[in-house]
Amino acid sequence: MTVKDEQEETFRGVPIKQLFPEERLGWKGFVEWEGNDERKAMASEFLKTKQFTPIPEFQQDPLPKTNPILIGHRWKEYHEALGLKSIVDYSWEMVQTEKEDMLHVLDFPYNGETRFNHVMEDKLTDNKYHFIRNHGGVPDIDPEAFYFDVGGLVKNPTRIYLSDLKDPEQFPQEEVTVTIQCSGTRRVEQIALYPGDGDELINAPWGEGAIGTAVYRGVPLKKVLKKACGGVLPECKHLEFIGADTYFKKLEVYNYAVSVPYRKVRQNEEVLLAWEMNGKPLPKIHGGPLRLVVTGYIGARSCKWVYKINALSVPSYGPVQRQEYLYYSQQIGKHNTLVSNGFSIQQMPVSSAIMSPRDRDVIIHDGSIKLQGWSYSGGGNWVERVEISPDGGHVWYACAPEDMTEKHYHAWRLWKIEVPVDAEGWLEFVVRTWDSSNNTEPTFIRSAWNWDLHVTSSCHRIKLYSVNRTRPLTQLRLKQLAERGETFTPISKPLEFALESRESYDAAFAKNPREPLN
Amino acid sequence: MTVKDEQEETFRGVPIKQLFPEERLGWKGFVEWEGNDERKAMASEFLKTKQFTPIPEFQQDPLPKTNPILIGHRWKEYHEALGLKSIVDYSWEMVQTEKEDMLHVLDFPYNGETRFNHVMEDKLTDNKYHFIRNHGGVPDIDPEAFYFDVGGLVKNPTRIYLSDLKDPEQFPQEEVTVTIQCSGTRRVEQIALYPGDGDELINAPWGEGAIGTAVYRGVPLKKVLKKACGGVLPECKHLEFIGADTYFKKLEVYNYAVSVPYRKVRQNEEVLLAWEMNGKPLPKIHGGPLRLVVTGYIGARSCKWVYKINALSVPSYGPVQRQEYLYYSQQIGKHNTLVSNGFSIQQMPVSSAIMSPRDRDVIIHDGSIKLQGWSYSGGGNWVERVEISPDGGHVWYACAPEDMTEKHYHAWRLWKIEVPVDAEGWLEFVVRTWDSSNNTEPTFIRSAWNWDLHVTSSCHRIKLYSVNRTRPLTQLRLKQLAERGETFTPISKPLEFALESRESYDAAFAKNPREPLN
Repeated sequence: MTVKDEQEETFRGVPIKQLFPEERLGWKGFVEWEGNDERKAMASEFLKTKQFTPIPEFQQDPLPKTNPILIGHRWKEYHEALGLKSIVDYSWEMVQTEKEDMLHVLDFPYNGETRFNHVMEDKLTDNKYHFIRNHGGVPDIDPEAFYFDVGGLVKNPTRIYLSDLKDPEQFPQEEVTVTIQCSGTRRVEQIALYPGDGDELINAPWGEGAIGTAVYRGVPLKKVLKKACGGVLPECKHLEFIGADTYFKKLEVYNYAVSVPYRKVRQNEEVLLAWEMNGKPLPKIHGGPLRLVVTGYIGARSCKWVYKINALSVPSYGPVQRQEYLYYSQQIGKHNTLVSNGFSIQQMPVSSAIMSPRDRDVIIHDGSIKLQGWSYSGGGNWVERVEISPDGGHVWYACAPEDMTEKHYHAWRLWKIEVPVDAEGWLEFVVRTWDSSNNTEPTFIRSAWNWDLHVTSSCHRIKLYSVNRTRPLTQLRLKQLAERGETFTPISKPLEFALESRESYDAAFAKNPREPLN
Repeated sequence: MTVKDEQEETFRGVPIKQLFPEERLGWKGFVEWEGNDERKAMASEFLKTKQFTPIPEFQQDPLPKTNPILIGHRWKEYHEALGLKSIVDYSWEMVQTEKEDMLHVLDFPYNGETRFNHVMEDKLTDNKYHFIRNHGGVPDIDPEAFYFDVGGLVKNPTRIYLSDLKDPEQFPQEEVTVTIQCSGTRRVEQIALYPGDGDELINAPWGEGAIGTAVYRGVPLKKVLKKACGGVLPECKHLEFIGADTYFKKLEVYNYAVSVPYRKVRQNEEVLLAWEMNGKPLPKIHGGPLRLVVTGYIGARSCKWVYKINALSVPSYGPVQRQEYLYYSQQIGKHNTLVSNGFSIQQMPVSSAIMSPRDRDVIIHDGSIKLQGWSYSGGGNWVERVEISPDGGHVWYACAPEDMTEKHYHAWRLWKIEVPVDAEGWLEFVVRTWDSSNNTEPTFIRSAWNWDLHVTSSCHRIKLYSVNRTRPLTQLRLKQLAERGETFTPISKPLEFALESRESYDAAFAKNPREPLN
């Protein structure tokens, strides 16, 4: 697509900038779509006059080894078409400033994965390494100018300025340690098994680093509803959160909108309006000045840049809430998917990952191999037991409590273990976790595979090539290589010397003949 | 490597061409190495003064989508260094003349795989499509000038001209229907699971087409030994076959040499000296003017361009026989491989492959899916039963006898079957075969995985995306697509229309609420 200079672009004689304006002072990169039906209709009509770059294919072919891995041409072009190119540019500027050392899974909307070594650095993920899955561009909102509206089925609809929210005299504050993960975490394993839905907003090919933990400071939404609005009306069953980012679905235009059940809000620390992350101001790329933090739920509900909260009798009609993040059964796919035959992913199940060693590593050891990883469960279920199998899932070794970080209701536990390994060659190591409700993980990827490739909660499996130095033949081979200054890896590189002398194999066959003698 | 003009190249003052000459009239591309120890030593010494292109890595990264897939730089350079570039050129000329429509897995030495559609065309594979796994260049030998020597532990060592061998007055002839396969057939499945030995002569990444069947005409070796040599001496336990192609191992130079046990030779039709393939003169690229055909054994024993046969008390010391085609146990790998801890692959086990549909195909059907493939077993065991599982190996359907080609002692059976399939989405179809000894196949690739990636005899598994048109929702979706002129594939391409109207999903959720009501 070629976009003309934004100054010139018009639709029905009106410059685009006037049709889709940034209206609020200090709220750069924000267009209010929700509630502006005429504006939405016009934007949609306008988009339908354009051609956009097709969605890239990345499930049937190997992923590029570039960083960023995938380029969000289409999402950029949607923004550009509506005169919002500055949002695209600002978002990438934020990535370069605050998220330099990430695996950029998708450049726009920004999806950044924590590099595996950073995942295991500490129980709390450094803000600059915490994963990000944005659904739109990053708005640039002055915290001084920031406010949000609370409406719908509340006694008194109200507008709250951030400065008031942060005033401990007006609202009580909480600090909660929270792990947030995407429902797409470890999606690459599902893709490698079978391709699934491509989706218009690329279903990012996440690995095991699409998860992170931080201490968030904020005010429980429950307190806001009670203190500022006099409580909700009896018909209120869901709270809708609307973010300042622009979202697209089949060429219709929205602000990002999701919801959580009112039941969830009742537990004070579980739905927080947060402005601080690990003791620092919430970075804009993470939803600053203000975001929701919903514990134990899919990250998508922790709405960033929240400017409107609505008490509703039903879940939000936002496409993200209704039409996406659905968990389909195994026989549902392109041929029969509906919105109503998937179920909505809200609370997250128990899941885990081995972070080191890495898949396909060669491990030279003396009879045991050390592994590290993370385990997590949603819904206030803490991680109780972590087990590693060195043989594809037959024998399991449990991590000692002292080798796991402390328990939290809403956060992962990092763990390490040293597993006895006698066997050599390719072995499959598996992790499975049990949470405090005795939930554990499905055994195989296929057990949990689903068309939209969400929630890869099956046991994480890695292949390791085990070289057991306590065995004499192995010692000999390592010595032969060392003497020649050759490396053992890559393992598929053939040895340059003869495996065995003729005398040696003649002697071996004399003892154990190749064929029967009679 | 840069090779100087062959005319100029010298070693110790002697032109290369004189050091490694083509001595026999009418035998182009043949250098006699075996028995010429001084020549072999000099060639090795000379090669060790050169640098060669490293062996390509193709197990850790995706295979190129080119044809030829892999380029045998190193093997070409060995030949070129010894002044034998004309062999490389002639070999490729033969490919272009006689094997145009093949999957060229490796250009030199030529490894060509039958394209999957040609595999299923007929019980007998057309010569121009029959797979080839050469270990060296194709010699260009005038059939009129061709002879072979029989020596070693025979009563009367002798030389036999091809014209005499073909004289039915002198030697009785047989016609045998024989399936030949490489021990590398279906190797790609092992590579995809775990990388293994790279090997100096590339362990080609074969698929299911490295197998073929032909009627060979020739003289049983047993008759030659008896009629021309007066029989073998009592100490004879193995027959060695030496081919006119040049072979390399760790910079030592050989003629290709293998052996089979004398026991095997005793069954007349099982070891044939053959000059005819499917009623036509044996093509040079297939071993013409004369090759061995050893039934039920790994293809490597069916020595091409055989110019010498030796009766021995032990297996051939040729590197192909002693140091290669070894079947290692699962814990043997780069760290501990020896020659003596693998066993020699001679007779082939039962194996099979689904040839259509292809892995990852989308199948739109009305409740059943048709499959076709091949099944084979070595050692005179014929294929008795072929079974297909549509569910990863739980339920098995057997092919009807009338849907299988006729039984042969030494050849495959092609089969077809229509399997009831109700389920939709990604399914794993599996084939397993039982031979006349009640042998069947290991269930998983891992069950049979081995370091040198030989004999992928495990059940062949393919993934199919099942779309069952007898289901109403599926019918609806196909209709929606047809009305819009859109295709169903690629499946990962998102649908451009909304999955469901708001009215429809509101109604569905009114009937089956997303969340409990209380």
